[in-house]
Amino acid sequence: MGMPLVITCGEPAGIGPELVLMLAARQAISWVAIADSQLMHERARAIGVDVDIVALAPGDPIPEPRVGRLPLWPVALRRPCCPGVLDAANAAYVLETLDLAVKACLDGHAAAMVTAPLHKGVIRDAGFADFTGHTEYLRDACGVDDVVMMLATDNALHGRLAGQPLPLRVALATTHLPLSDVAAALTQESLERVLRILAADLTRWFGIRSPRIAVCGLNPHAGEGGHLGREEIEVISPVLERLRGEGLMLDGPLPADTLFTPRHLDDVDAVLAMYHDQGLPVLKYSGFGSAANITLGLPLVRTSVDHGTALDLAGRGVADPGSLAVAIAVAADMVVHQAAGRA
Amino acid sequence: MGMPLVITCGEPAGIGPELVLMLAARQAISWVAIADSQLMHERARAIGVDVDIVALAPGDPIPEPRVGRLPLWPVALRRPCCPGVLDAANAAYVLETLDLAVKACLDGHAAAMVTAPLHKGVIRDAGFADFTGHTEYLRDACGVDDVVMMLATDNALHGRLAGQPLPLRVALATTHLPLSDVAAALTQESLERVLRILAADLTRWFGIRSPRIAVCGLNPHAGEGGHLGREEIEVISPVLERLRGEGLMLDGPLPADTLFTPRHLDDVDAVLAMYHDQGLPVLKYSGFGSAANITLGLPLVRTSVDHGTALDLAGRGVADPGSLAVAIAVAADMVVHQAAGRA
Repeated sequence: MGMPLVITCGEPAGIGPELVLMLAARQAISWVAIADSQLMHERARAIGVDVDIVALAPGDPIPEPRVGRLPLWPVALRRPCCPGVLDAANAAYVLETLDLAVKACLDGHAAAMVTAPLHKGVIRDAGFADFTGHTEYLRDACGVDDVVMMLATDNALHGRLAGQPLPLRVALATTHLPLSDVAAALTQESLERVLRILAADLTRWFGIRSPRIAVCGLNPHAGEGGHLGREEIEVISPVLERLRGEGLMLDGPLPADTLFTPRHLDDVDAVLAMYHDQGLPVLKYSGFGSAANITLGLPLVRTSVDHGTALDLAGRGVADPGSLAVAIAVAADMVVHQAAGRA
Repeated sequence: MGMPLVITCGEPAGIGPELVLMLAARQAISWVAIADSQLMHERARAIGVDVDIVALAPGDPIPEPRVGRLPLWPVALRRPCCPGVLDAANAAYVLETLDLAVKACLDGHAAAMVTAPLHKGVIRDAGFADFTGHTEYLRDACGVDDVVMMLATDNALHGRLAGQPLPLRVALATTHLPLSDVAAALTQESLERVLRILAADLTRWFGIRSPRIAVCGLNPHAGEGGHLGREEIEVISPVLERLRGEGLMLDGPLPADTLFTPRHLDDVDAVLAMYHDQGLPVLKYSGFGSAANITLGLPLVRTSVDHGTALDLAGRGVADPGSLAVAIAVAADMVVHQAAGRA
């Protein structure tokens, strides 16, 4: 059998561990989880799921996927953990699970990594003051300069609704910035890097030979010819023209409010939004709240849930594993496309 | 029979006149159009629709609605008009149609006004340098200080898709500004005025006794406790607290990307987005490209299409009257609710 996906269970006080257990109890998945072994046993008991947790080491053969079985690469908690109660002592544990997942992907022991949510605040409180999230941490761990955040819905899970084009993929030219910093952060250089990564990885991981990308304007109505801002004229259009000259298929800059309609989206492989809240509300709306967060530009496949740790729900078995299921489905799909591209 | 809706046909070189004729050929609507009489006859011939155009004056009795009949209050073009060819000489004509519609509503000759698209650029070129659009023009014509732009989809036209909450209503705290000006434009005073108008008009025009409004944050993740911007803490939250103290039902500030999902929207009568591209992409996506633009805060009902003049399509009969149909349906609905509120 092929290499498993590896999944990090994230913040131990959050819903990550139980989402993994809930899926393990329902589906046969070719995966291995990374978490503290006792934590997973306790959490399984707390939420009342019957899962056979099989401790292994990276490189060990992974047993055949089976409903109710969860292969585990154990990493030890620094201190015992109660659901809902953050403890800065366990921040190093969370980061260790990530390091192990990255190493397993790079060493060829895992085909891709999927991440459950971590809690940025407690990691910062633990003394990792520069920590800004999974994406940047993985960028540095993999030694690359730039990554691109893309979210995608998955048509296999929801089926195709009348008139709704699925899957929808939305990448971001800027990510987690105050709105007032967005315009200054968008430069010709940054936009060009993002578009090159996006186009290359749509081919590499999604099997799209000549991806067509629709690029949003920064301003309402894409600036309306300069009446509502000049970034379309001075920043975005010059980059698009340059890259079109190299053969990239780029539409835009387009008004975001008319671009996200079926007649535009049907021809497009991905949308590049200029900032977080221009692209993600429509993406999450279209995915009924469940989408996968994909990090492009890495030397490995990484997807993630699109939600947080939900400390208030942890340990009760009431959280929805829908986004985790999408993240796993998308990662598995990316692995297949990459393998096909190599063949 | 009741008072008609009045519809201004907008830019004569655009698709407005033919959209009105196309609907008149398909539906029996209690309405009267404002446009040049010869223009409407020519355009009907050009697109090959058979519509009986009945010239009347404001106050005249309106004939019974009938498929294939269009009552018209004529306003004379300043110069003959070819489809697709802008002419600054006709800017005064476009504004005169608006003035007549406002007067008819205020004088009690029309129940509401619906507007087809005009072309801002040609009106500015004609010497109306301050002209920024229908909304501001109507605000000044009605002598009010503040209006609020709200877009709505209409569930009557699309039916209710599985899991999709319709109709969706999205109002904007700021409208047509460069993105880099948005944060500075959002003040406690402006936000409070917008929320008061929105809440009052959801009751007055939509018959919702205690409207529940979901308010977006300005920044991604609604600022994440100040890590991604402080406007939620310094501007938005204080206003929401103050107005909650007066009994308004306000949720937020909420992250825009998680707010626009069915489980949040099901309980909410309208969403207030902080700026154009935070709210309108998802609204238009949900409406399959057809939505009505509603101006709140006026002493009259005004709705509009959500698209432009489409000069390249004009005179060919290929434009889609879907948004105009939604605008008319929403206006008619608002009139009914207002009447019920008065009774």
